[in-house]
Amino acid sequence: MTLLVALPDRDMLDRLTPQVAGEVDLVVWRPDDKPLDRVIDLLVMPYTVSYDSLATLAGRVRHVQSQSLGYDGAAEFVPAGTTLSNAIGVHEGPAAELAMTLILASQRGWPAVGRNQDAERWERPVWPGLIGKRVLLIGVGGIGREFEKRIAGFDTELTRVARTGRDDIHGIDELPRLLPAADIVVLAIPLTPETEGLVDGGFLDLLPPDALLVNVSRGRIVDTEALVQRVRSGAIRCALDVTDPEPLPSGHPLWSLPGSLISPHLGGNVASINQRIDPLVLAQIALLLRGEHPADIVID
Amino acid sequence: MTLLVALPDRDMLDRLTPQVAGEVDLVVWRPDDKPLDRVIDLLVMPYTVSYDSLATLAGRVRHVQSQSLGYDGAAEFVPAGTTLSNAIGVHEGPAAELAMTLILASQRGWPAVGRNQDAERWERPVWPGLIGKRVLLIGVGGIGREFEKRIAGFDTELTRVARTGRDDIHGIDELPRLLPAADIVVLAIPLTPETEGLVDGGFLDLLPPDALLVNVSRGRIVDTEALVQRVRSGAIRCALDVTDPEPLPSGHPLWSLPGSLISPHLGGNVASINQRIDPLVLAQIALLLRGEHPADIVID
Repeated sequence: MTLLVALPDRDMLDRLTPQVAGEVDLVVWRPDDKPLDRVIDLLVMPYTVSYDSLATLAGRVRHVQSQSLGYDGAAEFVPAGTTLSNAIGVHEGPAAELAMTLILASQRGWPAVGRNQDAERWERPVWPGLIGKRVLLIGVGGIGREFEKRIAGFDTELTRVARTGRDDIHGIDELPRLLPAADIVVLAIPLTPETEGLVDGGFLDLLPPDALLVNVSRGRIVDTEALVQRVRSGAIRCALDVTDPEPLPSGHPLWSLPGSLISPHLGGNVASINQRIDPLVLAQIALLLRGEHPADIVID
Repeated sequence: MTLLVALPDRDMLDRLTPQVAGEVDLVVWRPDDKPLDRVIDLLVMPYTVSYDSLATLAGRVRHVQSQSLGYDGAAEFVPAGTTLSNAIGVHEGPAAELAMTLILASQRGWPAVGRNQDAERWERPVWPGLIGKRVLLIGVGGIGREFEKRIAGFDTELTRVARTGRDDIHGIDELPRLLPAADIVVLAIPLTPETEGLVDGGFLDLLPPDALLVNVSRGRIVDTEALVQRVRSGAIRCALDVTDPEPLPSGHPLWSLPGSLISPHLGGNVASINQRIDPLVLAQIALLLRGEHPADIVID
């Protein structure tokens, strides 16, 4: 029987149809649509839909391809007998690009410069800039590697931290010694029981005055209350693409504190995503057509 | 007679005194202060003072060290018998860093993302991003070289343009062919009679839809009226650290147009400037102590 592949939208269907015409049945179908009368061999999830939408699909989907890199919390929703692959190589570049955007903007005066633009005020205080700053990168996976590539030309001192130290990468146990020498800390680690709340008051209090915390991973790696206290007092600054909770509710202090720059989880959300997600889906289809397992299975 | 060096502020005096104690007389003195009773051998200008303040110094200053890279318009104010050096190697890195800041911010959704932060709105449209974009760098001097170094890790296609083509650098006469293939244009050239108004309506109309114009050089390289028209219509976007006029007056459309990101001439204005200007001043003092000419004389 022909392979059934469910895609999240008409755009993707139109892009992929010429590539696999006749070899597979492509349909537009999303987890909250009316059940199909056939088992779906490969379900490509919508980009921004949460994993709990998978809970009702037991027996109806063989394999799920997420469009996200993170899969924290997915395990409890993926039905027995269904496998899940995350989207490796799709978002790492854009997420690292956004980390650089947040760092540069913060170091060059945003959000104040943006607020001055809106107030039509030409004000020129001296901002810290990035040259010569000591950057501590926590996480050396896909986003971390893309980040290293991008910051290489900016004349900073980069120190790398991973769960376990090796060669010129420090172990996470060395943080108490490394944090006091970090002007900028970049979080590029997955959310796991080990990393949840890693950035707490004790962590933040080890940072030097006016240090910048950048988070492009998951909001719950940071203790939000502890962060708000220290940004409010002016001890440190933050630039966050992810928050806890998300969406950040109107009225939350992180929106308005002078030392807080917020982007609304835009990490991988760029127009070029299709140029990376389409080849990934086509590669999974090719594996399934050959009777092989999909690649990058993270929940089995 | 001991060399007399005039410095623009007490901070610089305090930083340099330990380096040259006893060898030279250091004073805090600015062009609008009461004349000194001795000829100044080396006058270090304040960073943000305009060159017209030099007009009254005939016979009172031998050599002027500017803290700026650009010296457009200086020639008419430097008195006969006085030489002027610009500040090479001080601002190129920070200016290139700001160009990257403006590019990344614009490509990732600012000023809209900043306005949403201030309105406390979590909105996630898809922004263009930088990956895969075709970047046209006009100018391959100090800022251009620092810019190339920084953009190298961002997965773009970089094309370089100089006054005269050579090797893999295109000549400015090739712009009509290059502009239609440029998603982002970066101006990193000095203001000269040749470059004034270079970016006019004809230049801008050759750009593809939604292209981004980035200016970190001088505002008068761009025809502001022509730019405003095309940003207002949504044909192109702009990210400007320099404008014509400067300061940009309240009420000017460039402050508020959705496709316009403005920073108020912050190019070289970072806290680390002292780490680069001090060695430059000390090197000039060393040359003068040896009876040699100052380095980097641009007006003689």
